[in-house]
Parts: sequence; C-alpha cells; structure tokens
Amino acid sequence: MAKPSLLFLSLAFLALVSGCLARQLTSQTPNECQLQQLNTIEPTNRVQSEAGLIEYWDPRSPQLQCAGVAMLRVTIQQNGLYLPTYSNGPIMAFVVQGRGATGAVISGCPETYQSSQEFGQGQYGQPGQFGQPGQRGQQAQQGQQAQQGQQGQQGQQGRVFRDMHQKIRRIRKGDALVFQTGVAHWYYNDGNSPLVLVAMVDVGNQVNQLDRILRTFRLAGSNPQNPEQSLYAGFDTQILAQAFNIRPQTAEQLKNLGDKRGNIINVPQGLRFLEPQQQAGQGGRSAPPRVFLQRNAMVLPHWNLNAHSLMYVTGGQAWVEVVNSRGQNVFRGEVRQGHLLTVPQGFAVVKRTSSDQGVEFINFKTNDNAVISTLSGRLSSIVGLPVDVVSHGFGLSRDEAWQVKHNRQDGILTAVAPQGQGQGQGRADE
Amino acid sequence: MAKPSLLFLSLAFLALVSGCLARQLTSQTPNECQLQQLNTIEPTNRVQSEAGLIEYWDPRSPQLQCAGVAMLRVTIQQNGLYLPTYSNGPIMAFVVQGRGATGAVISGCPETYQSSQEFGQGQYGQPGQFGQPGQRGQQAQQGQQAQQGQQGQQGQQGRVFRDMHQKIRRIRKGDALVFQTGVAHWYYNDGNSPLVLVAMVDVGNQVNQLDRILRTFRLAGSNPQNPEQSLYAGFDTQILAQAFNIRPQTAEQLKNLGDKRGNIINVPQGLRFLEPQQQAGQGGRSAPPRVFLQRNAMVLPHWNLNAHSLMYVTGGQAWVEVVNSRGQNVFRGEVRQGHLLTVPQGFAVVKRTSSDQGVEFINFKTNDNAVISTLSGRLSSIVGLPVDVVSHGFGLSRDEAWQVKHNRQDGILTAVAPQGQGQGQGRADE
Amino acid sequence: MAKPSLLFLSLAFLALVSGCLARQLTSQTPNECQLQQLNTIEPTNRVQSEAGLIEYWDPRSPQLQCAGVAMLRVTIQQNGLYLPTYSNGPIMAFVVQGRGATGAVISGCPETYQSSQEFGQGQYGQPGQFGQPGQRGQQAQQGQQAQQGQQGQQGQQGRVFRDMHQKIRRIRKGDALVFQTGVAHWYYNDGNSPLVLVAMVDVGNQVNQLDRILRTFRLAGSNPQNPEQSLYAGFDTQILAQAFNIRPQTAEQLKNLGDKRGNIINVPQGLRFLEPQQQAGQGGRSAPPRVFLQRNAMVLPHWNLNAHSLMYVTGGQAWVEVVNSRGQNVFRGEVRQGHLLTVPQGFAVVKRTSSDQGVEFINFKTNDNAVISTLSGRLSSIVGLPVDVVSHGFGLSRDEAWQVKHNRQDGILTAVAPQGQGQGQGRADE
Repeated sequence: MAKPSLLFLSLAFLALVSGCLARQLTSQTPNECQLQQLNTIEPTNRVQSEAGLIEYWDPRSPQLQCAGVAMLRVTIQQNGLYLPTYSNGPIMAFVVQGRGATGAVISGCPETYQSSQEFGQGQYGQPGQFGQPGQRGQQAQQGQQAQQGQQGQQGQQGRVFRDMHQKIRRIRKGDALVFQTGVAHWYYNDGNSPLVLVAMVDVGNQVNQLDRILRTFRLAGSNPQNPEQSLYAGFDTQILAQAFNIRPQTAEQLKNLGDKRGNIINVPQGLRFLEPQQQAGQGGRSAPPRVFLQRNAMVLPHWNLNAHSLMYVTGGQAWVEVVNSRGQNVFRGEVRQGHLLTVPQGFAVVKRTSSDQGVEFINFKTNDNAVISTLSGRLSSIVGLPVDVVSHGFGLSRDEAWQVKHNRQDGILTAVAPQGQGQGQGRADE
Repeated sequence: MAKPSLLFLSLAFLALVSGCLARQLTSQTPNECQLQQLNTIEPTNRVQSEAGLIEYWDPRSPQLQCAGVAMLRVTIQQNGLYLPTYSNGPIMAFVVQGRGATGAVISGCPETYQSSQEFGQGQYGQPGQFGQPGQRGQQAQQGQQAQQGQQGQQGQQGRVFRDMHQKIRRIRKGDALVFQTGVAHWYYNDGNSPLVLVAMVDVGNQVNQLDRILRTFRLAGSNPQNPEQSLYAGFDTQILAQAFNIRPQTAEQLKNLGDKRGNIINVPQGLRFLEPQQQAGQGGRSAPPRVFLQRNAMVLPHWNLNAHSLMYVTGGQAWVEVVNSRGQNVFRGEVRQGHLLTVPQGFAVVKRTSSDQGVEFINFKTNDNAVISTLSGRLSSIVGLPVDVVSHGFGLSRDEAWQVKHNRQDGILTAVAPQGQGQGQGRADE
Repeated sequence: MAKPSLLFLSLAFLALVSGCLARQLTSQTPNECQLQQLNTIEPTNRVQSEAGLIEYWDPRSPQLQCAGVAMLRVTIQQNGLYLPTYSNGPIMAFVVQGRGATGAVISGCPETYQSSQEFGQGQYGQPGQFGQPGQRGQQAQQGQQAQQGQQGQQGQQGRVFRDMHQKIRRIRKGDALVFQTGVAHWYYNDGNSPLVLVAMVDVGNQVNQLDRILRTFRLAGSNPQNPEQSLYAGFDTQILAQAFNIRPQTAEQLKNLGDKRGNIINVPQGLRFLEPQQQAGQGGRSAPPRVFLQRNAMVLPHWNLNAHSLMYVTGGQAWVEVVNSRGQNVFRGEVRQGHLLTVPQGFAVVKRTSSDQGVEFINFKTNDNAVISTLSGRLSSIVGLPVDVVSHGFGLSRDEAWQVKHNRQDGILTAVAPQGQGQGQGRADE
C-alpha cells in the first residue's frame, strides 16, 4: 500500500460539495417514490457533437424521478468548446477528468427600463444618435458612473450595470462547479486529454417554476440529431439584425441554421486571451471534493435526513447496501466506475470498498444543508440508548448490548476486516 | 414627437414591480409546461355586479396553468364598492384606469387564547360580565395596555392587539398593489371614470397550501350568477347572532341571502370619512410601474432566469417573439391593449413597438427577485465570449463576430430603425 | 363552576404551538382540495405492540390529503418503550395523557470524510490499529479536541463531532414536542398510567423530498402485522458485524428478525439512568398548549390565512361550523374527544362549547407562522368598514350596522348566551 493513510480526502471545496444545492421545495405527484428496488444506472442517451459528447441518464428512471433531478455527462475533446447553455434548474457539476476553463455570465439584471434622460443627464436623447451605438455605449457608461454616484437615490436601477460580470476560471479534475438556474455557461478544454464533467440539474428545486422536465437552452450550437437549435434561430432575422445592429446577412448567419457541429465545437487555435483573466487565487480552487476510500474502508450505515444523495463512482469499486422504511433491502451489489446510484431521503445506506484499489465517488445531494445520521459508531442513536434498552430492544445480553454500543468508536468512516475474512457469505450470494 | 425622449418610464414603485411576489415553491404536475405554442389571451368569463364587472382569464389556459397563476380584471363603476374579499394566494394588482381607495385588514392575529385573568390583572372574570360586551372590550383595552407594558414577559400574546390595523390608501392609474394570501381587501371608486384593475393571484406560490385552483372568499356580497355567497351566509343564524352579539333578525340580514347585487355594489353617497385617514405621504405612491416604449424602441432579446413573466398590454401595440428551449418560435405576433401573454421561465423574448403611439405594458412576475439575462447588447453572454469563439461558434468572419459583439451597446432597451426599413419581410409574413 | 375564569389556557409553550411547523412549500396534484364536505375522523388502522398501540388516521382521507399531513396516536403502557423511529417529515406531537421521557439523537452530521492524518496529527494511521476500536475512539477524541482548537482552519469538518448530542427530557400531559425530519426519537413511559401522544407528520412540508406518503423508519422493533422490520434487518449480517465490530451472531440478533413485540416493548425494570440527565429547567416545560374553553364560550368566526388547522379534541364537546369559499357550510356538528377535524386554509370556522364541562382541544397547524383573521369582534374586517358600507353592503339600517360593528368587542374569544336560549333551532336541526 503506497499511502500510509487508509482513508484520504482532499478537503478543499467541501463546503461547496456537502452544501450542494439549495432546494426549498419539491413538487411531486403522489407515489412517485415507491421504489421497491434500486439499481445502478448508466447514461442511455448519447448526443455526439463535433468535438465532444453529451450523455444523458434516462429521465424516466424511477429513482431520478423520485429525486427530481436530471443527470448528464459531458465529454469535451481537446480544443473543444461547449457552447453557452442554461437550464431550468440549478446545476452542480464535477470535473471527473482533464482540465480547461469555464465561464458564466451573471448579469444580475432585473428587467428595469431606463429613461434616456436618466442616462445622459439631460444631454441625451436626440433620435438621430441611436444610429451610433459606440457613442450610445459611451453615454451609457457615463450614465453608469453618474448612477453610482447617486446610488442612494436611484436604488435598484443601477444594478443593471453594477452586477454584470463574466466569471472565467480554470477547472481541473476534482473541481466542483455550481451554476444557478438560467445562468448561461460554457467550457473549453485546453488540456491534453478529454475534459469530462458529470452534472446534476436539480429540476425538483423550487427555483424551477416550469415542470420537472430538464430543458436546455442553447445560445449557440444545435443538436444535429434532434430538432434543436439555438435561441437565436427562433427569432426573425430582421429582429435579430435590429437587436444586434448588424446586417440581416450576419443575423442570418448568427442563427446557425445549417450547422451540424452540435453544441461542442472545435476551436483548434485555442482561447489564449483567457489567461490574463485568471486570478492566481482562483487557480487554487481545484482540490477535489470526491471521496476516496482505500481498501478495507467502510462508510458506516447512515441515512440522509433532508436530502436525496446520488452516488456517482469515478473509480474503483464498492459494495453498497440500501434499506427502505420497511427494513427491506432495496439494493445490494457492487458499484463501479460510471455507475450512478440514488439513495433516497431517509433510506439507510452502507458502503464498503471492494477492490484493492479502493473506491472513489461523488455524492450529489439535493439540499444545501444536507445532514446525515449514523446507525452505528460513536455518533449513532444506539449509543445514546441505555444498555438496558439496547439489551431489551434487540434481545441481546447486557454484554452484547455493550459491544453493540461501544465496539465501533468511529464517526462515519471506519476500517473493516479484509475481505474474505468472514465476509464470503454475504458476497457469495451475489 | 411631443416628448424629447424616446423611451420613458416612471421610476417610482419599480422595486415593488420588479420585485413582484415572493414565490418560494412551485408545485406542479409533470409535463405541465409543454407549451408548443403560446398565444395572447383575453378574459373569457364575466361576472356582472350592480356597480361593476369582474372578468376572469380561463384558468385552464395551458400557459396560466404552467405559470401557476390566476388572472382577473376588475372594473368598478363610479361610487362602486368592491366588497371585502381574500384569496388562496398572494395578489398583485395594477390600477389600469381611474382612481379610488383601497383598504386591507391586516390583523396579524395568531390564534392565541387569553386567560381572562391575564386581561384584567386579576380584577376580571365574573361570568355575569360577559353579557356586557362594551365593558369587556374596555377591559380588554386595559389588558392590552398592561400587556404592552410587560411585553418582555408575555411575548407573543400581545400581538393579537398590537398588529391589528386598517390600511386605507388612495390609488390611481399606474399604482401597483400587493395583498398577501388571505388578507381581505376592498376597493372604492370615488373618481369620475371607471376604476379598472388587472390582478394576478399567485396560486402556485408556496403560501397557498390548497391546490392551485383560485378560491375567492367573500366577506360580503354574492355572485348572482353562480351559487356563491358570503362567508357569513354559510353560518347558522344563531351562531352569527352570538358571534356578533346581535338579534337573530339582524344576523339573518347579515347573511345577505337574497342579495342580487354581486360583489361590487353601489354606494352613491360616497365614503367621505375615508379622507382623514389618508396620509399625504401615501398619496404620492402613484408613480406608475408600467413600461412605456415610444415608437421604434425595442426590448432586447432576453430570458427570465427564475420567474415566469406575464405581459399585460395597457395601450398601444408591440411586436413580440418568444422562443423555447429547442430554439423554436412559440409566439410571434402583435400584442395589443387587453392582451395577456405568458413568457415562461427561461424562454427567450424580444419586444418591439409596432405603432407610432408606442406601447405600454405591465410585466407580472412570479418571483420576488426576478432576474433577466440578455441575448444581445452590452450585457449579453456573447459580449463575454472571445471574438474567436463567436466567429467559430456562429461561422462568422472575425469582423462580423466583432460587430455581433459590439454593435449594440445598450443594456436592455434600444432604439431600432423605423418600421418598414428592412423590416417589411418579418412583418409582412404576419 | 369551580374556576372563577370562563376561559383558561396555560400559556407556556405557546410559541412552540402557534409556531407549529415550518412549511415552505406544498406540492399537490390539482384539485386535491375540492372538499365539498368535511367530517370528523377517527383513527382507522391499529398496530398493536407488546406494550402499546399505534393508531393511524386513514391517509386517503380527502381532508388529510388536502392538508398534506399524516396523523397518528401512540399509546404506551406503563414501562413501555417506543423504540427509536424517524419519518419523512417534521413531527409535531402532543402529550394527551400520562408522563414519561423522550429522547432524540441530533447528530447534526454532514457527511464529511476525514483523512486519518487529520485526526491523529500524523501519529495515526497504522492499519493494525483498526482492530482496537477503543483506542481508535480515543484517538478520534484527541482529533476532536485538536480540531476544536483549530476550528477556523478546518471549518465544517469539526461539525461532525461538535453537534452530536442526545436530548432527553421529561414529558407529561399537555407538552408539545417537535422532531425535525429524519431525527430518530423514542418515548418511555415511567408513569402510572398510559402515556398517550397525538402526532402530526407534515409530509407536505418542503423538507420531505419523497412523495407525500408517510414513511416510518425504525431503528429497532418491527411491525408484527405488516412485513415491516428495523433498518438493521435490511443489511447483510456480515456488513452489520463489520459496522459494529461485533460477532456475526450478535449482528444477527441485532436484526431482531423473529421479534413479535412490535415497536413498543416492555422494559419493566425502568430506565433509571435517565434521571441525572434531566435538567431542572427543562422539567418545567410541561405547561400545556391545548386550548380549554369553559361552558358558554365561543371562538369567534375566523379563517387561517396561511395554514391548514387540524383540531383534535382531547376532552369535552364543541359545536363547530366550517364554511368554504362559496359561502357553503361544509361542516356543522358536534366534535368530541378523539375527533379530528381539518379546517383548510382560508375556510371560515366558528367553535362553541356545547357541554357544561367545556371543551379542550389542540390545533395542529401546518405553518410556522400561522396567522388568523376574524369575521366578527373588535379585530374583524367589518369593524374597519364605514358604517355606511356595512349598512349598504348587508342591507341593514344604520343602527343595525353599528351593532354589527361594535356589539362584540372581544378579539377572538367571547362568552355567549347559555345554550338553549334562542339557540335551540340551530342545535335541534342536528
């Protein structure tokens, strides 16, 4: 064993990960979570683009419907650009492989309409000027500065300008990203290997006011397999020409109608200009939030109090068991790289590495403040019970009850006997 | 053109309007927002009263069902009184025409029961006293004062009394009003023309714990067309007599059973007493939150990140296009006075005046903190993309890409070429 | 009449009770609250255990489905222990009878995984050590202390340990208890009579991300009538042995497979050890939050603005009427001990004692900040209306209108004429 430690986890980004996504409500049809059997699932739908691949898990999967999430995996080839896209729910994405950059436009723009007098301090507004956009922009800039100087008076209006920014940052394997609902974002792979992300879209989140079906809005690109195109393609050419103040021919081009490259295109010469926008401090945010368990490690049995948890395995292998509210085993089996397993809220789960290489996985959670409770170990309910109660409750001798309470002193993670030692039975059944 | 400015918007009340209604959750059945086609809709159901008219948009309209809102328009004739009413969702109302007054009872009354000893400081509680309500009330007043003096000790109990107040204020064209769920409110028209309000009831809001069907509870009045009556009418006469401490005959009258006047009744002599209750400061809250675009103005293409937006046109005419997540045009056409058009969350929309008089409209939004993002202009995602990406992404020359990024320097509003100039095509298709 | 006061309410715990449960969202299928008729309901399903009984109200009851809650009543015999259990929604429970103790494990445990180096400050991590749990625990303790000393650096990780605690407290008749979603809790009856609790599980609450069906997860015990067992029973024996670091035979026992005692077992020798854990201050939290109305008392007609209210009668008898949004009476009748009646949000309700012994009841509310508004009395909407409006609105003389407004000066509670005096009609109809 190369590493001296049995268990390892990079600690940065943990707040982001255990925090997951704020969900304030779940809207569901009745009986949606009558899951008699869980299973590991893999993506079923592939959308190939010029420079990459988007794979979707089946949205009709009962466990994903119960969890109210959509899951996808994006593979971006070298020099591939995933064109700007937004969705009808918050997105949590993990970089599973490779490196690159990502950008999001957060305009923070309430729909406020400004009187032109407000902009130009009364020096503006001759209709003729509108043909000169550069000048208008300049004026608007002045207006902005003026506004910032009188923020107290004008309040909200100024936000149109102040909050606008482009966030560009480097990403690499192990990074976790969160994009709020409706925020357009893109990825670029300037590394030497494919850039792979696994993402959960929390369509069950309250901020999605549409139904719970994933919708992906594309600012550019198209799906060559489906009748999907960019948002620009849906507008009249003349309207676009006016909106951009460009010639109709350019506007027509902007609609990208004949484009067969899909949503991930090749930009071979690279996006060099990105570099200056990166900040050193941001570059350090690459510590992985994934969990790595070395061999013979166990995550003690526990349940999620207020969230669903979706386990995506990025490497190695684990033995997992899940138990429902009737005490019935609804999953027992190996999970391996690429597998996704839903652990519904309240259901009890135990995980144990089942290969010498250990196991590495990510837990997507549907609650900002996900909390767990353990069924064994120092922090479990059983420890809080009097020995007599444990003894009576489970029909154990007092000595056995004491052992049940105190033999396992770990919090959530522990080391277990090597596989094969008294373990054969449970495993052999598989 | 009379006004020197191309675009005009009264700025007061903007926070209220763009703020709209707090919505923390949406509960929907699956596939409720599969809107392949949007259309402008007008009220379909009319309920005539003695001194006015209530018109309802069809609650089964797919776009209203998706948005989770009910829409209605209330027309109150001169000296008409819209009797106190509350609903199972927060209400946002706009005064489209006329002037008058409105009142709301906000009792802020948690259901607390007081020991009579608490009220009277031990000097109270002889059963015989209960027949003398005036005295009881007086005692309660004393109790209230006593309570306020010892607020720290008694905490919540005192709220029964402290929070009770009647809010009466003047309203006129352009005002926006918000009534919280379950808060009874009334309107009175003391102007010289009909008082018209358009209102959205956010039945999809989390605070509505019933289903998403609008329910209107009336404290007085009745619907002469439907079997609807006031809440009092549902109680036994004897119970009412006891509750009000009045004779059964008066209680019977209170039930208003034979009344055919509906929910808007005529009060010809006016409500003079209202005047002293108005405060000068409140009278100033009449700045209109509606949007007015002069001719040749355009609201740049944009989407709503976290809200539905319902556009109600109060005057003039606009050309509007809406695009869904597949890049398909789901609406393109003129919208005119009295039209309602839903722009679902995430869908892209562009608006352009299409008459010389401009256009005036209101955006009802289903989120307290509605945010938009633009598809063109200085604040759009495209501006944040490198020229190379725009060029590659859309198959444009570098020069064209530069124009796409920078030719339109406005934030959300812009001026466009006069209609007919290179515009005919798009319009002629209609 | 023994007591000098007509109305009585113990004031302690009121914040807890009127506060009820935080509900931030309701997800429902359409038309779920089309309640044309309400009725009092009693439990329909009984699950007998060795030392007690759990009774469930029918979850398919239209009024419970509309309210989005599950209701149950637990009766625990002397020396009976209700084994640790948690649910998929917050629980509000009232002690209706008896005395005992309750405990809850609030581990507050985000699922964080610690590197072993972090724990032991580099002195830890030899694989061999893992066979000695006591020592590991000790090390972990050290780790904990170390962490607390460097909280600022390690942030969230430390919470695994700091937040863990067992809450044990004495309970007795009149107490209100709240258990958050997923928090395991138990009850023990060490009194001299049965300990009876009535509980509402708010499965419509946003924190329940499963569907709205009650799920009860049991850490121990089983349902001898249904195929329900404890969570431990769902895991492989070998996994349990490893999780607890116990022999497989003990693990097998822990699964409790042959146990027919149900979820409430007999612990005749008592749980003496509990006593030192009680704090004097906590012992005082027994003041009842129930409402007691003496004879001839009335809760004035009112509605709930933002909550459903479920009235459970613990003693005596009341006459209740409920009116829906169409002014139709949907309930009028006597409610008696053991009856449950749902008053949906917005519906108007009036309650009057109808026996000489008065009536005692509990209001379960589905909102943390439940607010009511009255239809008569000093705080009602009608008082805020001008006399002319009341006169015109209801077709009353000015004098009658004045009486309607001012004859009843109470806030929410009042005394009414003794039964039989002008009251016979309403009652005789029943």
